Amino acid sequence: MKNIYIIGVGLIGGSLALELKRLDPTVTIYGISRKETTLDEAMSLNLIDRKATIDNIVNADLVILSIPVDAAVKLLPSLLDTIPEKGLVIDVGSTKEAICKVVENHPKRKHFLAMHPIAGTEYSGPKAAIYDLFQNKTNIICEEDKTDEALKNKVLNFFTTIGMKLRRMNPESHDKHIAYVSHLSHISSFMLGKTVIEKEKNERDIFDMAGSGFASTVRLAKSSPEMWTPIFKQNKVNVIETLEEYITNLTHFRDMMKQDDFEAIYNEMKNTNHIKDILKGIN
Amino acid sequence: MKNIYIIGVGLIGGSLALELKRLDPTVTIYGISRKETTLDEAMSLNLIDRKATIDNIVNADLVILSIPVDAAVKLLPSLLDTIPEKGLVIDVGSTKEAICKVVENHPKRKHFLAMHPIAGTEYSGPKAAIYDLFQNKTNIICEEDKTDEALKNKVLNFFTTIGMKLRRMNPESHDKHIAYVSHLSHISSFMLGKTVIEKEKNERDIFDMAGSGFASTVRLAKSSPEMWTPIFKQNKVNVIETLEEYITNLTHFRDMMKQDDFEAIYNEMKNTNHIKDILKGIN
Repeated sequence: MKNIYIIGVGLIGGSLALELKRLDPTVTIYGISRKETTLDEAMSLNLIDRKATIDNIVNADLVILSIPVDAAVKLLPSLLDTIPEKGLVIDVGSTKEAICKVVENHPKRKHFLAMHPIAGTEYSGPKAAIYDLFQNKTNIICEEDKTDEALKNKVLNFFTTIGMKLRRMNPESHDKHIAYVSHLSHISSFMLGKTVIEKEKNERDIFDMAGSGFASTVRLAKSSPEMWTPIFKQNKVNVIETLEEYITNLTHFRDMMKQDDFEAIYNEMKNTNHIKDILKGIN
Repeated sequence: MKNIYIIGVGLIGGSLALELKRLDPTVTIYGISRKETTLDEAMSLNLIDRKATIDNIVNADLVILSIPVDAAVKLLPSLLDTIPEKGLVIDVGSTKEAICKVVENHPKRKHFLAMHPIAGTEYSGPKAAIYDLFQNKTNIICEEDKTDEALKNKVLNFFTTIGMKLRRMNPESHDKHIAYVSHLSHISSFMLGKTVIEKEKNERDIFDMAGSGFASTVRLAKSSPEMWTPIFKQNKVNVIETLEEYITNLTHFRDMMKQDDFEAIYNEMKNTNHIKDILKGIN
């Protein structure tokens, strides 16, 4: 891989750029973005070697599509139209069904590999790019049998080298599970932040009384609305399902409190403590 | 302060023991607990110098009451009955109204100081005790004018020395605010954990797909039900109020999704991003 194009040089795209360059300093990393200022920032942070446009990918070995999922779905077909025979396009979005669907009948489908490297922080943009973001994290690979074997292996090998555990899953299962373990957490966090901000008009009280527990539960409310709105839109059915179950559980908790059934509340918490064992497996 | 009794040698009591001993190695720290095994553990971890019982506090300079809030409210009056003229009892619980109320007419009220050092982790028991837990954290002091001046100053000075910012608040305001910035976070986290556990019967899927965001939002679901059930019970009215507002906000979010109003969803998140500035003030 000599010519690597990164469309969207933010947290994920930028962090992948860092790893690619570290592994092979001779590669040329091209940055593509709607905003010139993003490319300037990526250049000054040494994330990319050159600025480029979509037309330039005719010489690409690898194109990494790391932009909001709605824009990714729109852009992918034309990328496949343009990608050369030696090239592969991968996408790294948080939803997989829509993007796999949009190119299912594309004549160059085998030049695409859908994946979701489950790594990130609550920050965004070029400045959010960091080394070692992917170490010991999981990368969900979808429909890999539809991708050219040789093109695919080179890229999967890269992700293994930077420390990712690869896991295969169909796009539908991915979107269903990720709604529970990621998308719901973001809504929970955003609405918790909203509830507290609304109530505590005098912010000094929040500053002073909020501890590390609060900070931990609302951390995701710092996430980018530009990235998350299209995720919720694309995964609407699954997200609504998880959200309704969450609301049901919270309402049940409230009812137990109203009924002074604190024995049941104790048991609810005791049973959920079991999350300890599950969290042990997460970095 | 020479003779210090700690009733409940867990996360908070044990961590205070570590700081007290570090500041003055000549103090004698006595541990009191319902469970002999807890005292054995506290002895072996060098958190306490000696095991004791309630009767022994007749020579106490300081008694730290750090047990679940229901047990604390029951025990406090008899502690004040027994405390000597030179002694002060402090409590460190997460609710302040009930405990202040139970001794409001006690003849030795001036030997009591109510506080809430807002510090902690999701762990509990003697093994959870750590150094520097209180550094740069806030300690809410309630009704300090009801406490003897000299006794109070010595103890407040200790908390300032270990790095705590002291803030004065009446018990009612404390309980109202803390419901938003602490108690609600715990319920949000417990119910999020429950929702995901219920759905994902096959735990491998959680292990593999859950990232740091999920871990962060459900971290508090590891908390001790023994400690948290009485907190919810004592702060029932405030907690139900916060919980209902949270459920209303989540339901509104769900409705916007159902109505495909993703512009409104974007705006909700954008407005809540403002939490960034609030979180900057929290460790």
